[in-house]
Amino acid sequence: MKRRDFVKGLGAGSLVATSTMLASCSNADTAAGDKQAVTKPATKKIKWKMVTTWPRNFPVLGTGANLLAEMITKMSAGRLTVKVYGSKELVPAKGVFDSVSKGAAQMGHGAAYYWKSRSETFQFFSAVPFGLTAQEMNGWMYYGGGMDLWRRAYEKYNLIPLAAGNTGTQMGGWFNKEINSLADLKGLKMRIPGLGGEVLKRAGGIPVNLAGGELLTALSTGNIDATEWVGPYNDLAFGLHKQAKYYYYPGWHEPGTTLEVIINKKAFEKLPVDLQEIVKNAAKAVNMDMLSEYMAKNNQALQELVGKHKVNIKKFPDDVLKKLKLLSDQVVSELAEKDAFSKEVFTSFKHYRDNVIAWNDISEKAFISARSQ
Amino acid sequence: MKRRDFVKGLGAGSLVATSTMLASCSNADTAAGDKQAVTKPATKKIKWKMVTTWPRNFPVLGTGANLLAEMITKMSAGRLTVKVYGSKELVPAKGVFDSVSKGAAQMGHGAAYYWKSRSETFQFFSAVPFGLTAQEMNGWMYYGGGMDLWRRAYEKYNLIPLAAGNTGTQMGGWFNKEINSLADLKGLKMRIPGLGGEVLKRAGGIPVNLAGGELLTALSTGNIDATEWVGPYNDLAFGLHKQAKYYYYPGWHEPGTTLEVIINKKAFEKLPVDLQEIVKNAAKAVNMDMLSEYMAKNNQALQELVGKHKVNIKKFPDDVLKKLKLLSDQVVSELAEKDAFSKEVFTSFKHYRDNVIAWNDISEKAFISARSQ
Repeated sequence: MKRRDFVKGLGAGSLVATSTMLASCSNADTAAGDKQAVTKPATKKIKWKMVTTWPRNFPVLGTGANLLAEMITKMSAGRLTVKVYGSKELVPAKGVFDSVSKGAAQMGHGAAYYWKSRSETFQFFSAVPFGLTAQEMNGWMYYGGGMDLWRRAYEKYNLIPLAAGNTGTQMGGWFNKEINSLADLKGLKMRIPGLGGEVLKRAGGIPVNLAGGELLTALSTGNIDATEWVGPYNDLAFGLHKQAKYYYYPGWHEPGTTLEVIINKKAFEKLPVDLQEIVKNAAKAVNMDMLSEYMAKNNQALQELVGKHKVNIKKFPDDVLKKLKLLSDQVVSELAEKDAFSKEVFTSFKHYRDNVIAWNDISEKAFISARSQ
Repeated sequence: MKRRDFVKGLGAGSLVATSTMLASCSNADTAAGDKQAVTKPATKKIKWKMVTTWPRNFPVLGTGANLLAEMITKMSAGRLTVKVYGSKELVPAKGVFDSVSKGAAQMGHGAAYYWKSRSETFQFFSAVPFGLTAQEMNGWMYYGGGMDLWRRAYEKYNLIPLAAGNTGTQMGGWFNKEINSLADLKGLKMRIPGLGGEVLKRAGGIPVNLAGGELLTALSTGNIDATEWVGPYNDLAFGLHKQAKYYYYPGWHEPGTTLEVIINKKAFEKLPVDLQEIVKNAAKAVNMDMLSEYMAKNNQALQELVGKHKVNIKKFPDDVLKKLKLLSDQVVSELAEKDAFSKEVFTSFKHYRDNVIAWNDISEKAFISARSQ
C-alpha cells in the first residue's frame, strides 16, 4: 500500500505511525462542502493543497490537519477548498517545507523542528527541552512576540507560519532499561530527535535517528534501548507497549510541542482579505482543538495501557531530571550564539519563560498542588 | 458618564471594572470592515448586536469580546457585522442572558455562573472550586461531553452557548487580614460570589455580594476584609493593591474560568451555513486568544505589583486549602442532587476530572515540578 511506507521518508520526524490505525477516519477534503448552497459569493473558487508530515488521518495530528482544511472550506462556503495530502502522497514528510516554499502546495502541516537543518533556531517555535508548556507557548506566540519572530524566521523561504495544534506535555518515552541514575544514561541507545537528542548525547547517551515505522523492530531486536514518541493516545495506537517494558515520564524534552501550518506567502497574498482572515482564525481554532483532544483522550489511553496492557509507568529520578535540565539549558543557550537573529529569538523566549514561570508558580502550579493534597 | 455606573447592575459578576482604564482602547465594531472590498458576496448584510457583562473595552474580557466581533465581521467580509455593547449600554450585565434569550440582542458575552439563579448547574460551565484548569476545561468542553451538556442546559432558553475565552487560574484575592489558619476564616467578610462563596460560608466566613465599583470603598472602610477578583493584569488596572495588604494565591475557587458567548438560537439558525461556521470557529479562536493574553500579561502585571507597589504575595496555608477542598467537594456534590440533569452534568464532570488529574499528574504537573527543581 502506498500509505504504508510513508515512514521511511521521515527521518527527522518524531511523530509518525503505520497506516493500520487510519482506516476508519474520513477525509476532510471530501467531508466538507455538503451544506454550502445558501451563500453564493461572486468570487471564483480557489483550490489549495495541504501537504503534511503525518500519514493521512493519523489520530489528532492528521485528523487535526483535516479539521483545519474542513474549517476553511466550510467557512468560505467552498470558495477556498483545501485538499489534504498525507505524508508521501505528494511529497515525503521531509519535503513539506520545500514544497510549500516553492508553491507546489499552498499549505503544509507539521512542526518547526523538522526543518532544523535550515536553521537550528526554528526549534524554538515547536519544542524546547525544559521550555514551555502548551498554554505558556501560546502566550509567547500570540502575546509575547513569538509569532512575529517566527514570521521573520520563515520570511526568506516565502512562507507564513501559524501555530496550528499542540500535543501538550509529551511522555518521556518507552524504555527496556530502567533509569535509576545518571549512569544508566551512559551508552543508552534512544531514538530521540532534535534538541532532546543533543541533550541525551551530552549525558552520555547515543541518540538514534529512526523513522517511526522502524521503531517496533528496533526495540524488539535491541537495536535501540528506548524511544520517545508522543503520549498515551498516539503511543497506544502505535503499539509501543508491545516491545518496551517501562513507560517513563515526564517528557522533559517536549513539554508542549507547537504544530504549525505553513502557507506559501504569494498564495496567501493573492487571497481576498476575508479568506485570509478565515485561514488565520481557522489555524487558531485548530490550535485550541487539537490540544483539547489530547487532553481528553490521553488519559483514556493511559488507563488502557495500565489496566489492560499492564504497562509499567515510571518517573525519571529527580537527579536525572536535574542533570538533563542543566544540559538542556546549555544546549539551548548555545543556539543563541549562532547569529544575531538566533540571539534575538533566544532572548525573547528566555525573558518570556522566566516571567511565565514566576506567574505559573503562584497560579496553575500552586492550584494543582493544592488540588492533589 | 454612562459607562461609569455599569458596575451597579452587576451583583452576581466577579469581573467588572471602572471606565477609567478603558479610554485608550478602540472599538471592534468600528475597527472592522476596513479591507473588505475584495470579496462581494451576493447575500444581504446581516447586523447583530452583542451585549456583554463587561464594560466596553475592559482589558481582555471586553477587548476579547471585541475581537470575537471583529473576527466574525472580517471573516464574513462584512456580511455579518457584530456591534459590541458594554454593560449598561443596552442592558445591565445581569440582563445579558434574558436579552439574548428573547432575541433583543443576537449574541452575549459573559460567563455561565452569572446565571446561576436560573440553574445552579450552569456553574459547571464556567468555574468549579478545585475543579479544572483552563486547558482541562477545554478538553472537557470539546472532547469530554461538556459542550453537549451545556447546549442542553441552555436549550429551553432559546440559547446556543459556546466557550469563548478563559481567564486561566485566578488569584485567591486581596486581604486585609492574614490567613494563618482555619480560625482566620471565621467571620471573614469577603466578596466572593458563586460556589466559592458557599464554600467560604461553610468554613465560617461571610460571603458578601458587592459590585466591582464598590470594592475599593468597602475595603478602605473595613466593610469587607477581603475580595477576590481575577488576576494581576485585571487587578492592577483596577487598583485593588491600594486598599489591601496581602495578595493571596492560589485561586482555588476559579482554577480556569470559561467565558461564554451565547447566541440566540433562532437568529443562529437563520444564518447561512458558512456564517454559522464562522461564528462557531471565531468563538473557538477567541477562546484560545484570551487565555493566551492572560498568560502573557499576568506576569508583567505581577512584576509591577511586587516591584513598584510592594504588594505582599502570600500563599494560603496548606491546611486551609485542604479544608476548602473538602468543603468544595461537598458543595459541588450537592449540586448533583438537584435533579436528573444536574446529576448527569456532575457525573460527566467528575469522571472527566478524575481522569484528567491522573494524566496531568504524570504529564504537565510532573514536568513543571522538574522544571522548578
